[in-house]
Amino acid sequence: MPSEFLSNLDPKNSEEDFKTLGTACRLNALSMIKAAGSGHIGSSFSAIDLIIASKIFYQSKSADLFFSSKGHDAPGLYSVMNALGEIPDEMMLKLRRMAGLPGHPEVGLFGIPTSTGSLGMGISKAKGFWYAKENINSRITVLLGDGELQEGQIWESLPGASRDKMGGLIAIVDGNKIQSDTWVEMTLPLGDLQKRVEGSGWRYLECDGHEYASLKKAFDEISRESSKPIFLYAHTKKSSGVSFMEDFNPEGLFYKYHSGSPGDEEYAEAAKELILKLDLELPESLFPKSPTIENALIPSSNDFLPKERNRSLIQCWAEILEEIFSSDVKFMALDADLSYDTGTYKVAQSFKSRYIQCGIAEQDMVSMAGSLALSGKVPIVHSFASFLTTRAAEQIFNNLSEHSKIVYCGFLAGILPSAPGHSHQAVSDFGIISSFPNIEIFEPACETELQLMKTFIHETDKSIYLRIGSVDLPEPAPVNSVSIGKLTTRKIGSKFAIITSGPSMTRIALEVADLMGGGLVSVFTYPTPGRQLSDDDLSNLFEYKKIVVLENHMPALGIFQNLSRASISEYLSVTRIGVCELPRNGHTDEVLNFHGMDAASIKQKLLG
Amino acid sequence: MPSEFLSNLDPKNSEEDFKTLGTACRLNALSMIKAAGSGHIGSSFSAIDLIIASKIFYQSKSADLFFSSKGHDAPGLYSVMNALGEIPDEMMLKLRRMAGLPGHPEVGLFGIPTSTGSLGMGISKAKGFWYAKENINSRITVLLGDGELQEGQIWESLPGASRDKMGGLIAIVDGNKIQSDTWVEMTLPLGDLQKRVEGSGWRYLECDGHEYASLKKAFDEISRESSKPIFLYAHTKKSSGVSFMEDFNPEGLFYKYHSGSPGDEEYAEAAKELILKLDLELPESLFPKSPTIENALIPSSNDFLPKERNRSLIQCWAEILEEIFSSDVKFMALDADLSYDTGTYKVAQSFKSRYIQCGIAEQDMVSMAGSLALSGKVPIVHSFASFLTTRAAEQIFNNLSEHSKIVYCGFLAGILPSAPGHSHQAVSDFGIISSFPNIEIFEPACETELQLMKTFIHETDKSIYLRIGSVDLPEPAPVNSVSIGKLTTRKIGSKFAIITSGPSMTRIALEVADLMGGGLVSVFTYPTPGRQLSDDDLSNLFEYKKIVVLENHMPALGIFQNLSRASISEYLSVTRIGVCELPRNGHTDEVLNFHGMDAASIKQKLLG
Repeated sequence: MPSEFLSNLDPKNSEEDFKTLGTACRLNALSMIKAAGSGHIGSSFSAIDLIIASKIFYQSKSADLFFSSKGHDAPGLYSVMNALGEIPDEMMLKLRRMAGLPGHPEVGLFGIPTSTGSLGMGISKAKGFWYAKENINSRITVLLGDGELQEGQIWESLPGASRDKMGGLIAIVDGNKIQSDTWVEMTLPLGDLQKRVEGSGWRYLECDGHEYASLKKAFDEISRESSKPIFLYAHTKKSSGVSFMEDFNPEGLFYKYHSGSPGDEEYAEAAKELILKLDLELPESLFPKSPTIENALIPSSNDFLPKERNRSLIQCWAEILEEIFSSDVKFMALDADLSYDTGTYKVAQSFKSRYIQCGIAEQDMVSMAGSLALSGKVPIVHSFASFLTTRAAEQIFNNLSEHSKIVYCGFLAGILPSAPGHSHQAVSDFGIISSFPNIEIFEPACETELQLMKTFIHETDKSIYLRIGSVDLPEPAPVNSVSIGKLTTRKIGSKFAIITSGPSMTRIALEVADLMGGGLVSVFTYPTPGRQLSDDDLSNLFEYKKIVVLENHMPALGIFQNLSRASISEYLSVTRIGVCELPRNGHTDEVLNFHGMDAASIKQKLLG
Repeated sequence: MPSEFLSNLDPKNSEEDFKTLGTACRLNALSMIKAAGSGHIGSSFSAIDLIIASKIFYQSKSADLFFSSKGHDAPGLYSVMNALGEIPDEMMLKLRRMAGLPGHPEVGLFGIPTSTGSLGMGISKAKGFWYAKENINSRITVLLGDGELQEGQIWESLPGASRDKMGGLIAIVDGNKIQSDTWVEMTLPLGDLQKRVEGSGWRYLECDGHEYASLKKAFDEISRESSKPIFLYAHTKKSSGVSFMEDFNPEGLFYKYHSGSPGDEEYAEAAKELILKLDLELPESLFPKSPTIENALIPSSNDFLPKERNRSLIQCWAEILEEIFSSDVKFMALDADLSYDTGTYKVAQSFKSRYIQCGIAEQDMVSMAGSLALSGKVPIVHSFASFLTTRAAEQIFNNLSEHSKIVYCGFLAGILPSAPGHSHQAVSDFGIISSFPNIEIFEPACETELQLMKTFIHETDKSIYLRIGSVDLPEPAPVNSVSIGKLTTRKIGSKFAIITSGPSMTRIALEVADLMGGGLVSVFTYPTPGRQLSDDDLSNLFEYKKIVVLENHMPALGIFQNLSRASISEYLSVTRIGVCELPRNGHTDEVLNFHGMDAASIKQKLLG
């Protein structure tokens, strides 16, 4: 970006100046995503004009805060911040790299106020900033996605802001009308937003989110309101600025440009359109030369990450789901706007009446699954592991307390992929689920282990947490036999053993065995990592000089705990007493006695 | 209840008949709560007429479902179910007893459709039942509290019901206008409910929730609507039916009859008023004698549970909070409508500007705490452990990923009190928090250990989960010395050791020592159960023949894990590898390397 342009940048610049800036930022965001190999084009492009307008027309003092709640628009946000001198050029091709720019915004980096990417938290966070602000005139602006408005926390957060007369707090909605899979209206309609928002005591405005005159008018209006929080719904277009990406069939099944990096040809075509637009619109007085072409981020093909595209467990699960559905009418699938990331897209077509699109509303989805299960259905609930197990933790616990059978499928489980950021890395899901009663974790390492679900789902009475590491990895070498409750042998070695679960860690374990060479390392996978190892498997482990338990989650129960249960009692005489099943209700004494936690029971254990 | 009356009960009975029934049910609910020693009078009494009206005017087929989402009105619900012959008389004085009637409704018991008591899940559950129903004309009715409408899940659940045209699904709000602590309007106003509800595509109606003519009219209207879900706001009075319990000052600080058993004199006075009313209104034709007096549940004083009222850790925490607040202006308190159950009531008065009443909106509360912390405050967040750690799990994780310092105070932690039911028994909180990075658990066994928070809160950089077992228990014998990271010695014995945390388990451990006699058992408490034991403490433990670790939560990390870490490596050579801190972002290779989870790092550990 040319400093001449930026030093002159001011609310009085012309509509064309801002449009040029917006186009240049789109070109940069596109290039960042191409170089990173992943990112969200659609949401970045629809938001860029909103970000520019907020920062230039509304945010002026250093104490003013702007942040994106949806966070998926990070490349768009970064490109505007770069244009405004807030992020240096050298960071721009380091999107989603360590010590680079995170996939979703992270607090502290270049003044970003808070970490986002888990949807729905934005207004609450803006309210916290509002309570803490020292300058009474500080302005706090949070950008939301329209799909994000499906989250209950958004609606939970509105009344407190009107109760406390939070003037200077505004929520802008990037109303691009398409969410992860398809149209918002086809996913979960938002209803009459104006009524819903005004009913909560907020002021409601609308504007055209790509027309700077309309945006300026809205912000002028907003600046005059001092006693009410304001909700500005901006009509935008997903992927705005690149014509072939804007196109989406009204009955569209799956919108292609929500996430992911464009292919080489798509990238070239999109960049060409943006560059052409820049030339056409370039205001001569401000740009002595064509800076957006000379300085723009056009990565060379060397900057592109190699693409490893394998058949991931998602496709395999999509097929298994169809088989399960065919086997018994009681199975139903629920999905939270991630049908192509969780594999429900097949049954959504072939078993329409047994598929519920829940929108980005995980709590609602899980509680609906609860009553479906009580009605004799077996609901199979889908989302990313990080969202499903945390956003809906209480709802899952409540369902488990009802002893019904529900299958919870958590995708993107584990530390990988590591590019999207903390909000998408599910490393606490294992511990959370391990802390609940009446549920068993199933974590397949490969398609063969995943196939076990077809019988497991019928055999167990408990609920199941299907923990799926959905990274694109080559399938490990085929195994001869897999069965529930047994270690799967993947490699035989003489001295060391690695025990693990899930595809990523399995591939790493096999790599270790190769690295060590000479038939030294055995590799086992264990798809039911919360289960006690069988006596056979356990006694076989005593042959090894050293055992590594490789776990793709924060420390919690798991295979390691299995082993320690088996060994600790013989070394240091420790007996564990605790709540080992769903707690009973009643008088203190009767409940403690039931659980063996009263004094007399403990005395017996000590003497026994 | 006289069978003559019930066999005749029918929508055509007179207003007086239903009022009589309502009064009789109130008398029974009152007696149940008195006998149980705890329960919710206010919410039971405001709901009783709604429950009667729903069951008689609207629910008619066996496939129709009625359930209470708030669940706090369980005694009221049970008394109506008893009157309708759904619960036998002999259960009625077994409220909150094992093999009796649970404190909040549990699925399966006497046809109750689903377990409730965790607020906000009701409409979602009703939707699940709607999707599963086999008879297209089945009616599904869910009863909500008005305070409950503060939960985001309520608003998240509305749009899907209108999208799918859920005729026959109705949500009735018991609009008694008082929530746990005080008036709804003084806690977190609901705004213009009609606009909010209609904006989500539901039909909205209001009625008088104690006048059967008004209720009948509403249900007639509802019966004519076949294509839209209906939201019926019923104006009610908390504790309706007992005049001195209905009274509440307009500026009221704390409403006395939300929960808890009445004292003996209050019970007698309330029962007298209800009995008088029955005599006055008794329709001779239906009641050959005065059955509600002869058959009503009037427990003798022998049925009353003894009351153990000691100073619980809540009062101690309330005082510590005041001290902490005096020491530094950066401390703030946030509370979710439980100020008398969490001890914030003192600072809410003495430090008004540093107290935020969040309403029953835990997600909003936790995310607000997040941005307050980023702004230099130290927010201290309060709720029951079961709600705080599950309803707001994703928000807590998000905050932790920002490395700020927040204190989360979870009350009613552990299996006790066991009377309110599963929704209130926090036994998974420990595992959930243990699965998160950047947070340490502090679980005091007594006031002396709790006092350590005054220094700990300043010393640690991490967030803290203050796990408070807030049962009324006598303070254990005073201890000489307590310090962070050390076992507190409570009893010295020669042969056995019990290690535990929290007041309930400590009292039990001391009881064990007494039972065993002869100086056999040492008792230690450990207020930082997630921390490694010090070398000194650990080596001292090797003196004991047997050690019991007594944990008041589902199996997860804890003291036991501490010991297994210490011993397992010497017995069976197991090395644990996993994600041991907040996961980094970036390319697969760089992230795995950072965490020591790549092949080369693991090879080194195997050889090392």
